[in-house]
Amino acid sequence: MKDGLYSAPQKDIRFVLREVLEVERTLARHAPAAAIDNETLDQIIEGADRFCHGELAPLNATGDQQGCVLKDGKVSTPDGFRAAYEIYAASGWPGLCAKEEDGGQALPMMASAILGEMLSGSNISWALYPRLSEGAYRCIVANAPADLRKLYAPKLATGQWTGTMCLTEPGAGTDLGLLRTQAAPAGDGGYLLNGTKIFISSGEHDLTENIVHLVLARLPGAPAGTRGVSLFLVPKRLPDAEGRPGEFNQVFCDAIEDKLGLHGNATCVLRFEGARGYLLGEPDKGLAAMFVMMNSARLGTGAQALGLNEWGYQKSLAYAQERLQSRSPVKPKSAGYGPDPIVCQPDVRRMLLTQKVWAESARMFLYWIALQIDLDLHGNEEGLRREARDLLALLTPVAKAFVSDNAVESVSLAMQVHGGSGYVTDTGIEQTFRDVRILPIYEGTNGVQANDLLARKVLPDDGARLKRLLAMIERQDQAWADMPAMAPFLAPLSSLAQRTQTLLPGLLDAAVRDPLRFSSCATDFLRIVGHLVYGYFWCRAAHAALTKLPDGDAFRSEKLAAARFYFEHLFVEVEMRIARLSASADSIMEPAALECR
Amino acid sequence: MKDGLYSAPQKDIRFVLREVLEVERTLARHAPAAAIDNETLDQIIEGADRFCHGELAPLNATGDQQGCVLKDGKVSTPDGFRAAYEIYAASGWPGLCAKEEDGGQALPMMASAILGEMLSGSNISWALYPRLSEGAYRCIVANAPADLRKLYAPKLATGQWTGTMCLTEPGAGTDLGLLRTQAAPAGDGGYLLNGTKIFISSGEHDLTENIVHLVLARLPGAPAGTRGVSLFLVPKRLPDAEGRPGEFNQVFCDAIEDKLGLHGNATCVLRFEGARGYLLGEPDKGLAAMFVMMNSARLGTGAQALGLNEWGYQKSLAYAQERLQSRSPVKPKSAGYGPDPIVCQPDVRRMLLTQKVWAESARMFLYWIALQIDLDLHGNEEGLRREARDLLALLTPVAKAFVSDNAVESVSLAMQVHGGSGYVTDTGIEQTFRDVRILPIYEGTNGVQANDLLARKVLPDDGARLKRLLAMIERQDQAWADMPAMAPFLAPLSSLAQRTQTLLPGLLDAAVRDPLRFSSCATDFLRIVGHLVYGYFWCRAAHAALTKLPDGDAFRSEKLAAARFYFEHLFVEVEMRIARLSASADSIMEPAALECR
Repeated sequence: MKDGLYSAPQKDIRFVLREVLEVERTLARHAPAAAIDNETLDQIIEGADRFCHGELAPLNATGDQQGCVLKDGKVSTPDGFRAAYEIYAASGWPGLCAKEEDGGQALPMMASAILGEMLSGSNISWALYPRLSEGAYRCIVANAPADLRKLYAPKLATGQWTGTMCLTEPGAGTDLGLLRTQAAPAGDGGYLLNGTKIFISSGEHDLTENIVHLVLARLPGAPAGTRGVSLFLVPKRLPDAEGRPGEFNQVFCDAIEDKLGLHGNATCVLRFEGARGYLLGEPDKGLAAMFVMMNSARLGTGAQALGLNEWGYQKSLAYAQERLQSRSPVKPKSAGYGPDPIVCQPDVRRMLLTQKVWAESARMFLYWIALQIDLDLHGNEEGLRREARDLLALLTPVAKAFVSDNAVESVSLAMQVHGGSGYVTDTGIEQTFRDVRILPIYEGTNGVQANDLLARKVLPDDGARLKRLLAMIERQDQAWADMPAMAPFLAPLSSLAQRTQTLLPGLLDAAVRDPLRFSSCATDFLRIVGHLVYGYFWCRAAHAALTKLPDGDAFRSEKLAAARFYFEHLFVEVEMRIARLSASADSIMEPAALECR
Repeated sequence: MKDGLYSAPQKDIRFVLREVLEVERTLARHAPAAAIDNETLDQIIEGADRFCHGELAPLNATGDQQGCVLKDGKVSTPDGFRAAYEIYAASGWPGLCAKEEDGGQALPMMASAILGEMLSGSNISWALYPRLSEGAYRCIVANAPADLRKLYAPKLATGQWTGTMCLTEPGAGTDLGLLRTQAAPAGDGGYLLNGTKIFISSGEHDLTENIVHLVLARLPGAPAGTRGVSLFLVPKRLPDAEGRPGEFNQVFCDAIEDKLGLHGNATCVLRFEGARGYLLGEPDKGLAAMFVMMNSARLGTGAQALGLNEWGYQKSLAYAQERLQSRSPVKPKSAGYGPDPIVCQPDVRRMLLTQKVWAESARMFLYWIALQIDLDLHGNEEGLRREARDLLALLTPVAKAFVSDNAVESVSLAMQVHGGSGYVTDTGIEQTFRDVRILPIYEGTNGVQANDLLARKVLPDDGARLKRLLAMIERQDQAWADMPAMAPFLAPLSSLAQRTQTLLPGLLDAAVRDPLRFSSCATDFLRIVGHLVYGYFWCRAAHAALTKLPDGDAFRSEKLAAARFYFEHLFVEVEMRIARLSASADSIMEPAALECR
């Protein structure tokens, strides 16, 4: 925090990049095509911080107060949003990881992870305008025919246009198989779309001259359910061959939602009424094609969670350091009554450290995820690529749900640290409390993520991908087993890995014999996997602190204390989660008040 | 829920009153002066439900949208609030438990507990206007000289006037010893007060002709800290001897807060500028005198939490029963795809049951607390009165903090069940999510409650009061030990009671040897005590269901399933809490980023 505004925790970020993940060395060795040196990473950190602290953070509260306005089908964003976007696009941030041929900078995904954390921490409502474009870009690159790609991908890479993801309809949310938007062939290779999409973030705005909607719809005669869903690219304005946006397409913003938070971002109801669209990927394979963007959005939600978690921590720490109330318990009685800053109170410190450690855990995890994406794309050995791909598939739902649930808890603690002041508008933390609450809901609720993890990522391969994670933990355990200072960290993690291994067969068996019990375990299981991951990274962080930071250094002690706090206070949640897994499904399924026909 | 509005869970309430707590029999036997029969309880339940569902619930959303308006020092409450208040007062609700000599109905506190749940569930912003009056009334009865009491108590008992509690100042929140408001003798036995109080709920409004402020202030030359704080009664308008409100006192509402929720309630900044006041209780003993009201407000916060928890559950259950999405896992495949109501999904049921069981647990606990107040006041044996008093002292912070934290979790789950719809304003659950969040903050933050429990209720008597609770659990365990059907409930509770007994000496010892560790345990310890209490009540509920409800009855099965759900899913939280208690204070106190001078 600087001048009362978000500023990036540069030192913590560098610690993760250099000491914990060794990004420069790892990419140079295993994915030279995506290599990046520490100096370039530093430039990104400093440049992104300058932009986010200087341009976006000052617009965060005003954007919340003003909100968006819909008039005659056009959305006006809050004051300053457009000017900030112009700076953003002119600085090349939209295309950080886009290909050079599209006008991008072809940097590794780590660059985007760093930027994503800061954009969301400083102004999540603003960040939602450009950030969905990244997934849309990747989806177009993966699925569009050459001519479409050539027309649209550079517009997204340069930030001239933004992208949206149009999935949800009034009758189709979690269950996309129910969607009813129709796409009829126009006779010229294109399609005409009819239907209504809701909850479309950034669906209409005044930041760019055009918007590219990626829309799920059904072709005539398509099979029912998810097997009859296709993906279409539908521009707000139809471009000519040179990419100049021309006449308006038949896409109408009928309403924007009044909602708990994210007031600066327009959540739109979009009506497609004979809107021209272009097929992306194969007919009826729209969900698979969309998954590139969906996974990107899920990881993006994790990044938003990290940013808001960090911001809440900065804000509540600053408050706790300023607010004088009661006596410090570490002050000698002889020093008189006080009052002292409340940061001295153990219970306040518990709340602050919970936020700090959730944020730092998320950072290690999400930056590592970014590394896996580059290893998947550019790894120089098939085994490495395969491992990265498996871990990404396994852990994407964890990166979405675990990180966002922890962020909601963290921001609530940030409010709690503020006491009564936290509940009033002026302080600003109540905005963050409202903003962060969307994260467990959108891009697939956290219940959907838990089900995705258990039923789609663990069950189908009999836990093979999960065992890759356990093996990674086991390798680490063995590598550092001779360091007594590592024992307090390695021991509980290793024990959890073994317990997970032990309970896995029973869980997989339940999928067949007792599917209700299996389903009812999903959320608890996701929390356990989350702690396997965080435990793994706190071991790495502790090891990095012990071996790479100078003895006696305050930052070193702080990281070791954070690792201890994690294992002593947060990791122990697994005791509760494992206990729950042994419950039968009866108490969940029986109660008649919750009649289920 | 009825017509989309809050309606009281009458059947659940009756189950607690009749089967679990046996209120009629218990009071008749142990506190005949407070006796009440089931028919009268039924009348209260039905009458309160009629008023809350019919008058208050329809004003809940509109009150939130309109909020309060401050103009020229006067607060206007939202449309309909005043009319509802007139009906409320005319129906005698304000004086349900007030003494007959003051115009009250002298009913036992159970009547107030029932009413309190429903008022808050239907419209917490409205409820905060009259409900603080109850504590103010009791505080005046306990502390005011005869003439003051005669003038003021009936006004509160009849609801002609309302009461407030003026503690917090900009520099004095948790630490009331820092308060600076001054009270100078006026020479005629009265005092003139000068100072500013903030966060005063219902501090100014248009519902009644007068408001009675109970204000903490310092007499000239009073000792520093909490030992120099006195309590004063300060009316908004000075009444004549017949109680007709006359000229305005020098109390000015300078501002009302913009805040996250509770928009329909005016949270005021009150400036006392030579305001006439009257001493309540002894000079410099204001905190002790105020504690009657403070404890009442803390239990009131529990009641608010119960009401909002119940309302969130009703709302999300109704949504889950209506929203068709995905296939029910219990439907035979042959029945086709669906979609079915999401209430059929195990993960959704988990969220609904968590809310339901938190609400039902809180109801048993808080109604039992009301019973203890009557046993304390009217019990016919000193031993009983003493036990009730001890348990009340011990469990008031638990009733405030445990119940409110669970309610925040519950309402968040209610939002989660709604998916994207929960985040938009129309659905209404986002209002409840905003409203409920104040509960862990006001009337002493939940951290303050945890410290109160551990450092003031357990430590000073070496755990004697806590051991009363453990003994109560032990007696129950022995009484029902011969019922095999009770074993799944009694066993985990008994085990927790023993573990608590075992860890108590170490904890008390830490208070002396390692006070930072002691303090840092407070929140986890409160959660453990909360589960001792809830576990105790779910044993009683299960026993009542088994012995008093007919075999094969759906309601009986539901209560037993709820008890199982409680022990299998919620009670197991203690595993995590106990694990945390063994942590040292180092990881909390060390991190240098949280510098503590």
